[in-house]
Parts: sequence; structure tokens; C-alpha cells
Amino acid sequence: MPAIPRYFQAKTRLLDLVNELPDNTPFPPERELSDVFGMSRTTIRKAMDELVLEGRLVRGAGRQGTAVAPRKQVHRISLDALVQDLADREQVVVRAIGAQDVVNVESVLVRGDEPVGVRSTCLHASRFPGFAERYDGTTPLRRFLSDAYGVRFGEPCPWCTTALATPRVAGLLDVRPATPVLSVAWLGHDLRGAPVERSWVVLRGDRAHLTMQGLRLSAPARP
Amino acid sequence: MPAIPRYFQAKTRLLDLVNELPDNTPFPPERELSDVFGMSRTTIRKAMDELVLEGRLVRGAGRQGTAVAPRKQVHRISLDALVQDLADREQVVVRAIGAQDVVNVESVLVRGDEPVGVRSTCLHASRFPGFAERYDGTTPLRRFLSDAYGVRFGEPCPWCTTALATPRVAGLLDVRPATPVLSVAWLGHDLRGAPVERSWVVLRGDRAHLTMQGLRLSAPARP
Repeated sequence: MPAIPRYFQAKTRLLDLVNELPDNTPFPPERELSDVFGMSRTTIRKAMDELVLEGRLVRGAGRQGTAVAPRKQVHRISLDALVQDLADREQVVVRAIGAQDVVNVESVLVRGDEPVGVRSTCLHASRFPGFAERYDGTTPLRRFLSDAYGVRFGEPCPWCTTALATPRVAGLLDVRPATPVLSVAWLGHDLRGAPVERSWVVLRGDRAHLTMQGLRLSAPARP
Repeated sequence: MPAIPRYFQAKTRLLDLVNELPDNTPFPPERELSDVFGMSRTTIRKAMDELVLEGRLVRGAGRQGTAVAPRKQVHRISLDALVQDLADREQVVVRAIGAQDVVNVESVLVRGDEPVGVRSTCLHASRFPGFAERYDGTTPLRRFLSDAYGVRFGEPCPWCTTALATPRVAGLLDVRPATPVLSVAWLGHDLRGAPVERSWVVLRGDRAHLTMQGLRLSAPARP
């Protein structure tokens, strides 16, 4: 096992400090922490950077220095809600991707006044004539497709991984580019197995936990 | 929308280059890329760092410089497999957490000769007398608990988020500390709803996609 890096030792000590301080307390500056802990400013900065990415410290926009992030800002978001609920700000964008006309619906998921995720759904325009004119973003998208076009959806098989926020997504989510995000994607099929939509959600790792209720494990194989 | 940061412009151009080169091709050094693109070495380094974290470039241990990461190293791992399959290297560790004796089973998930995840399960020692002596890691843990102790499990409700690899996990997964990882956790309950086990899995974001088959969405609420 390799030795514990200096910055991680610093992080552990800073985290103890974060846990003791009330929400929004201004955090001591790098220079001071460097003196108190006898560690270089580079080491302290790396440790603080991780605590910012993990949502324990906040820094930036219009704020002097760094402060303790308010607790209880982690929202549990269900996979159900991602797939079939109405998002808070829906925006319909029609754009051509390659040679085919694709309709794109982009939504921002908001919890407690903060953006926590971005959902983007692509549909083939030819299968949903007039979609861009008819869909006004006040009905959950799946229900609209069922009601207006008679689509009956099968169960999706989503997959997820981590990614680093691109500048565009970072702008929508109000985080720094390269913040770790949870990326969830699925293909929506109808009951005959024909693909209907392709969706992709990015959630802020520091603000959202994805919950996967409604899961039935397969019977385990026995030798 | 804020301007696109320089490092992201560099990343886009480097990614074009990565996509054109065969697997394992040595990548040009920072200095050369900095000259060719007319961007600072700091900018190039930040862009390359992200490509390493995303598994597109490899760097490190016993390797001179940076190289194009081999393709097709992303493994699809099912939630089913995480919860109930046998891992590749199981290790039983008994340790006391707080005042209670907790048995901890730690496993490394390997795919294609690479470690891609770490699973850690905690059990109350008092509920499973003799567990540490009886469990030899050759049977999937859940099946062993069913067969040896008569546990019947209900369906779990896992949740997932992102995290940065701790030095310990990074050591087990052969990545740099602070690499983004996917973190999946669940509580195992028996059919009466009593908690039996608490499990936690960390997957390398650059090597593993978690797939969530067997999902039944709840019927969407109608107004």
C-alpha cells in the first residue's frame, strides 16, 4: 500500500475543521492554514480543491474567499423521476444532427432553488410530426408522447457512469468546469422494441444522489 | 453563457488527435503540444489531466510519458452482478467499528485483468456467529448468507453518486488518488424489513458503466 499523500492528510484535517464549523462560516485562508498545519500552500490548495468539488466548501462567484457549504443540500433523486417526471425548466430545441432532423428537449432539474441536473432527450422528428409546435413543456415528456402520439413505453435499462462537467453543462449547473458529475443515459423503446427516444442526464455529484427503487434482481444462478 | 475556457479548447483539439491515433501510441510531450497549439504548458497539462482521468490517455507507473489508452476498456457491469455475484478477489476482514463487532468482507472486481471496482460489505457479527471462520470467499456472499444462515433477502434500493478516489481505494484500483469514481451503496434487508448488511461499491469511472436492468418504473402520477 503506498504512503498516504500529504494533500490527503491535509484534507482529513481540513474536513475535521469543516465538520466543526456552522454553515456558511468563512474558512481560513490558504496562507493561514499553511502556517498552522506546517504544510505548503500547494498542498493546502489541493486539499481545499477536493473539498470544493465534493461540496463541503464553497468558493467563487461574488464571494470573498471560501466558506463552509450549507449541510443538507444533497437531494435524493429517483431514477423514476429522471425518466418520467416533468423537469422544472423545459426547453424545446429543434436541431439537425447529421443528416437527420432530431428534436431535442433540454430540461434543467432544480431542487431547493439550485440546479442539480440537466436532462437532454432526442427524438426523431419524422416519427413525431409537429412535436416542436405541440409540446409546450407543461406535461411530462413521456406522458405527452403517450397521449399525443400513442407511444407505449417498455421498461428502460439505464446505465450510468461518472464524467467531468463540460463548460456548457457546468454553466447550466452553476459549477466549475471539470466538476465530477454523475451521467445517466437510457434508450426509450416502445413495447415492440423499436427505439423512440434517447436520453441523457447529468447530475451534480455534490448535490444529488440517484436512488434506484423498483429494482428486481434476477434469480442468482446456481451451479 | 461564459466563454469556453482555454483548457477546454485544448482538450477538444487533443481529443481529435487521440481519436486519430492507434492504441498505445506515445503521445507528444507537453512542450511540443504547447508549441504546436500556441497554448501555455499549464493549459495543455490541464487538458491532458482530464483526458487521463477520463481514461483516454494513460500515464504513469513504469511508463515513459503519456500514451493513447487502448479502446474498448469500458466494461458494462450490472447492478445485479454488484449485489449478488462472486467477486474476483474476496477478502474477509473482521474489525470492530465503534462498540459493535462488525464483520467486513472486501472484494476487488476485476474485468479483463484490470481492477475496476471495490466492494465492501458490513455485517453484524452477532447475527452471523462464526461467519469469519465459515466464509471462504468461494460462494457469492448473499447465497452463502441464505444457505448458511437462512436469510431471505428483499429487493434492495441502491443509490449512487460520484466521489473522488481516496488514496486507499486508488491503491486497490490502480488509479491516481482523486480520480472520479462511481459510488454505489445499498442496505440489504430480509423479507421482514430487518437490515442484514450494508454494502458499498466504488467503480472506476473510466473503466466501468453501471447498467440497471430489471427496473420497473412506477406508474406515472396523473393529475
